[in-house]
Amino acid sequence: MTTRRFTNEQIDRLLRPKSVAVIGASDRHGALGCTLLNNLVQYKFDGAIYPVNPKRDELQGLKVYHTVNDLPHGVDCAVLAIPRPFVIETVRDLAKNGCGAVVIYAAGFSEAGEEGAKDQAELARIAQEYGIVIEGPNCLGCTNYVEGIPLTFVETNMKQPGPGQRAVGIASQSGALAAVLATTLHPRGCYVSTSVSTGNEAASGVEDYVEWLVDDPATHVIAMYVENFRRPAAFLAAARRARAAGKPIVLLHPGKSAKAQESAATHTGAMAGDYALMKAKLTREGVIFANTLEELADIASIAVTCKSLPGANMAVLGESGALRGLAFDIADEIGLDLVDLNDANSPKIRAVLPDFVPVSNPTDITAIGLSEPVIYTNLLRALLEDERIGSVVASIIQSDPITSKIKFPPIQAAIADGDLTKPLVFAGVDEGANVPQEYIDGLAAAGIPYFRSTERAYRAIARLADLSKRDLTDRSGEPVVLPALADEHGVIPEYKAKALLAPAGIAFPKSQFAPDADAAVAAAEAVGYPVVMKAQAAALGHKSDAGGVILNLKTPDDVRAAFERMYASVAAYNASIALDGVLIEAMGKMGTEMIVGAKSDPEWGPVVLAGFGGVTAEILKDVKLFTTDLGRDQVVEGLLSLKQAPILKGYRGSPALDVEALADLIVQVGQVMAGNPSIREIDLNPVIVHPKGQGVVALDALMLVD
Amino acid sequence: MTTRRFTNEQIDRLLRPKSVAVIGASDRHGALGCTLLNNLVQYKFDGAIYPVNPKRDELQGLKVYHTVNDLPHGVDCAVLAIPRPFVIETVRDLAKNGCGAVVIYAAGFSEAGEEGAKDQAELARIAQEYGIVIEGPNCLGCTNYVEGIPLTFVETNMKQPGPGQRAVGIASQSGALAAVLATTLHPRGCYVSTSVSTGNEAASGVEDYVEWLVDDPATHVIAMYVENFRRPAAFLAAARRARAAGKPIVLLHPGKSAKAQESAATHTGAMAGDYALMKAKLTREGVIFANTLEELADIASIAVTCKSLPGANMAVLGESGALRGLAFDIADEIGLDLVDLNDANSPKIRAVLPDFVPVSNPTDITAIGLSEPVIYTNLLRALLEDERIGSVVASIIQSDPITSKIKFPPIQAAIADGDLTKPLVFAGVDEGANVPQEYIDGLAAAGIPYFRSTERAYRAIARLADLSKRDLTDRSGEPVVLPALADEHGVIPEYKAKALLAPAGIAFPKSQFAPDADAAVAAAEAVGYPVVMKAQAAALGHKSDAGGVILNLKTPDDVRAAFERMYASVAAYNASIALDGVLIEAMGKMGTEMIVGAKSDPEWGPVVLAGFGGVTAEILKDVKLFTTDLGRDQVVEGLLSLKQAPILKGYRGSPALDVEALADLIVQVGQVMAGNPSIREIDLNPVIVHPKGQGVVALDALMLVD
Repeated sequence: MTTRRFTNEQIDRLLRPKSVAVIGASDRHGALGCTLLNNLVQYKFDGAIYPVNPKRDELQGLKVYHTVNDLPHGVDCAVLAIPRPFVIETVRDLAKNGCGAVVIYAAGFSEAGEEGAKDQAELARIAQEYGIVIEGPNCLGCTNYVEGIPLTFVETNMKQPGPGQRAVGIASQSGALAAVLATTLHPRGCYVSTSVSTGNEAASGVEDYVEWLVDDPATHVIAMYVENFRRPAAFLAAARRARAAGKPIVLLHPGKSAKAQESAATHTGAMAGDYALMKAKLTREGVIFANTLEELADIASIAVTCKSLPGANMAVLGESGALRGLAFDIADEIGLDLVDLNDANSPKIRAVLPDFVPVSNPTDITAIGLSEPVIYTNLLRALLEDERIGSVVASIIQSDPITSKIKFPPIQAAIADGDLTKPLVFAGVDEGANVPQEYIDGLAAAGIPYFRSTERAYRAIARLADLSKRDLTDRSGEPVVLPALADEHGVIPEYKAKALLAPAGIAFPKSQFAPDADAAVAAAEAVGYPVVMKAQAAALGHKSDAGGVILNLKTPDDVRAAFERMYASVAAYNASIALDGVLIEAMGKMGTEMIVGAKSDPEWGPVVLAGFGGVTAEILKDVKLFTTDLGRDQVVEGLLSLKQAPILKGYRGSPALDVEALADLIVQVGQVMAGNPSIREIDLNPVIVHPKGQGVVALDALMLVD
Repeated sequence: MTTRRFTNEQIDRLLRPKSVAVIGASDRHGALGCTLLNNLVQYKFDGAIYPVNPKRDELQGLKVYHTVNDLPHGVDCAVLAIPRPFVIETVRDLAKNGCGAVVIYAAGFSEAGEEGAKDQAELARIAQEYGIVIEGPNCLGCTNYVEGIPLTFVETNMKQPGPGQRAVGIASQSGALAAVLATTLHPRGCYVSTSVSTGNEAASGVEDYVEWLVDDPATHVIAMYVENFRRPAAFLAAARRARAAGKPIVLLHPGKSAKAQESAATHTGAMAGDYALMKAKLTREGVIFANTLEELADIASIAVTCKSLPGANMAVLGESGALRGLAFDIADEIGLDLVDLNDANSPKIRAVLPDFVPVSNPTDITAIGLSEPVIYTNLLRALLEDERIGSVVASIIQSDPITSKIKFPPIQAAIADGDLTKPLVFAGVDEGANVPQEYIDGLAAAGIPYFRSTERAYRAIARLADLSKRDLTDRSGEPVVLPALADEHGVIPEYKAKALLAPAGIAFPKSQFAPDADAAVAAAEAVGYPVVMKAQAAALGHKSDAGGVILNLKTPDDVRAAFERMYASVAAYNASIALDGVLIEAMGKMGTEMIVGAKSDPEWGPVVLAGFGGVTAEILKDVKLFTTDLGRDQVVEGLLSLKQAPILKGYRGSPALDVEALADLIVQVGQVMAGNPSIREIDLNPVIVHPKGQGVVALDALMLVD
């Protein structure tokens, strides 16, 4: 793939090194070079260790080299536990000496100002010249848990996945979060394969390591923390490969609350912020967004522990009626579907329950499981075998070790045959309960994720079920190239934008541009009265505010008078705006006002935005983003998930609207964006949506072109 | 107080008994009467224990009584671990024998159908006749942890709060959740004082036990799980007393997702569902609503561990930049205020930090705390002493026991002087980290709640900070009695509703009722053209749908023609509707359409609803509920928290609206509701809100009266 900067073999020298040099090795307690060396020795690194320290001859029984130039040629990886000022020269020497990869802990580069940024650029240059992999600077290193190689100074719990055991690969821009995630996953019985923290990403980034993790046979799920994708196209390609390989990517990315860029020229630009655009693109590639650090670990732990991901429709085995109402509330809040189960529609479930327990979902088996634990096994099996159900949760009151001993084994037994096609999740209700770790590990080994809290399990399942509901088929149509676009740059005013877009099949009212009053009258005659007159100039963003829209002109005199008045108003509004002229347009039927727009990011590519317009468009933000590879049906589905969707469906006696025509418009705009990468933004606002069968008409158009 | 059914002395016989009879005592493993007796003996109940079993003479070294009639007179409490069929007679015999309280575990009463309901009513009757306190039926009993009295068959961890230790009292309609809550609180270093599960509440309910807990010196916080308040007025009174006593009530109540009652006659009725009304009332009494079981324990643990509750504006000590962005996202989502701290505005905080750490919030101290742990103490003290800050969180990477040993003591030392005026909360970042329990207990003993997850801590603090921001002052105005209301019942049509409400100061357009066409013309002349004509009949709910509203009538002929047309339309719409006549009303200026309504529950009392109207009112539910004791300023604040509030403030060049006049209307409607308990619902829809200073006008009115 052209987006890859490194081969797996190059990255192997960092993540699967056969020899490691510790630059700045030490035996001074607390020094990075001491902890690192201890880690390598303690965890019995299988390859050669070359400590480097100008003042020592021996450390931990190993021969010490005095300079990097004394090292044997072609060391796989050198870890720099040295102060910032020595970094550049050392890296250069290492590169010259055939070293394959370096890890740089030191901070003080691009994050520290201009000088640091310059040095960081020099690191990138060296990496490119010599083909050396540089992790960092300003990172916490990496750990290969499978081969037991800790290239980090963080205290590490080297929990090694055995052969065939599923594990999470971690690629994080924050070293702290990479460490935190491993700490959180391990006690749940989950394994980590390899964890990389990328820091400032001078010459390698999360994109590169995800490519490697996709090909790593020990990695089954990829968990990421990212603040800023530096190479979006490369990550999109990596995400696509991960999906093809069946390795879910779970991503935590702060920035939801960041304000959209203020440079946006259109409504669409303001509403489709960078975070939203990125999320739309990555969601479409099957990436699962975690909202919080809790969710990152929760989702990853289900994905790695279960052999298959939750489908839609969850079923729950519960032990208390009180938890039923709470389950309904949570499910409603997070959009989780609880499949409807009852005595009549579920004879096989009915058959395994005592008479006094009705089939329901959640099913409340009461405390009967304490005296008849086999009910856990039987009911869970019946639920797991039911084709209507996409995931099963055992929501259990654990109490204490005695109660755990009664309940855990029959629950684990429910999947004893090991041939599960859907996840079973154990979720405690009393999260502080004293549960012996052996039970939790037993569940995990059997493929049952363990959650201390039922609510947390529900949230994680909801995110995964959402993925299973996505139709990720590429339905891209033919890109539509606008030939006349080549000459246009900057803000394109309405009359030109409409002229550009109309050939692509986008419906506008009949209209004619007029540079003077006579032409305006002629245009009105040609279009047919009554008409609307709209001032035209690239610099005039909000026409209405400037008196630049006059409705319902019925005679030539109306048109002339309006022309005079409009020029005067605009001049009064802002004397620096020179109008190109006016657009004369036929008055159309009223209808529901919506907005359709598009935005393109040079790296991420285009998205189309659509939603309810009018005064409240920006207040309520009742809009959705659509990637350009969706078909009409998928767009319709998205539109029907808008908050005000009941209006589209026909509300309180008003007719259903032409959602299909609106979807077609969205698809068309997407094809235009796909065919013309120079378009930054399109804004069709308002788009009037008529009753079903009567189509849509865009009343205004604005474009921003590179 | 008239709402109390029991004195504390009566309930003492259940919750602080000096003698306990175990009816159905046994030594058969697994029998309720066996576990219960074991619990009492194991935890060394300090009073007399009277086992009752017809077939035994001795159990656990205690003399066994063969029937309840053999018991000494005046036993404080009898616990019935016997089958359902024997319950009624046994309770009756116990009552006659001077027993003060009984606990009934058996199920099969009101929840099991008509027969069970009849027997439950008999229990209530016996309770009333003899003044005996009945807990249950269908409950798990109660446990007084302070005095070590477990009247439950649940395995109990009798963690006794010592003198002066703060503790949570639990009143729950679910026995399972009461047990779960204790299990969850104990490992966090929190104590429970007394826990009561009320089951079917035949003769005593959560309201009664909350009254007792308010007076219980060992209880400092009250945690509740309730599915259905059976005596709302009594609970409101109890909540008021709890607030006065400084004992926060944290409530988990499922039902948010339940559909509003379909019997509602007006828009307001449909939008102000029972749950929303209850929540508005209880929020106003200072009750804190937990959204989930997690939150119930989380909020209670902060409230009980800290001596004071979080105020507005949180500050965070963090150890990683990555957590800053995540904190902003969460804070934004849950409405938590992070106070703005920087080098310039915080010299005292600046003074305790190393040079390279800028003051910010969250402050990222990096890993420096590992080598200079005193920074934890100094920074936390500086934050705790800062008057801008309402709560402080230490968000810590715990890693392992070695790291914990470095970090926990200096954090605990931050409040060593013990005179805290605001909470300090410890929140782990890596929630699975192996932290020795002694550190957690140490924090709790020092008054620092321990959270494994930072996000959870933030959510709980947000709920408590929200309480601190509520102005709970009673600003009730004089109730307004509508004298003409006495004769009205059922649905009151517009012309009558307006006539009833106008004297209360509510502004309507000038109008006149007309029973026939001639009267309509006369009315139009009196009102002044142009006018609107509206069909009037109690049975005509949605006038517009039936052609019952005709606008812009300008001449007598217009009026006559409209009158004919309207009668025909309504007849065609529904032949069974007989119109009273029409209302002729002056056409007013356009403006923003809002809705104001009110609803009264016989037990909870009235609330007023207000929000944005129009087509999308029911779709977007952009409405707020107001209790009738709010002043104008408080109502304005509520209105400005509506989603579409920017419209009220003046959006995109449109003028700011007369929010004060709208608030006055809401206060007036509240006074009308307070003065006329027979009004079930009022619906003013739409209310036109004009620009500031120009007032509001209600265009339509509908009332439902008992």
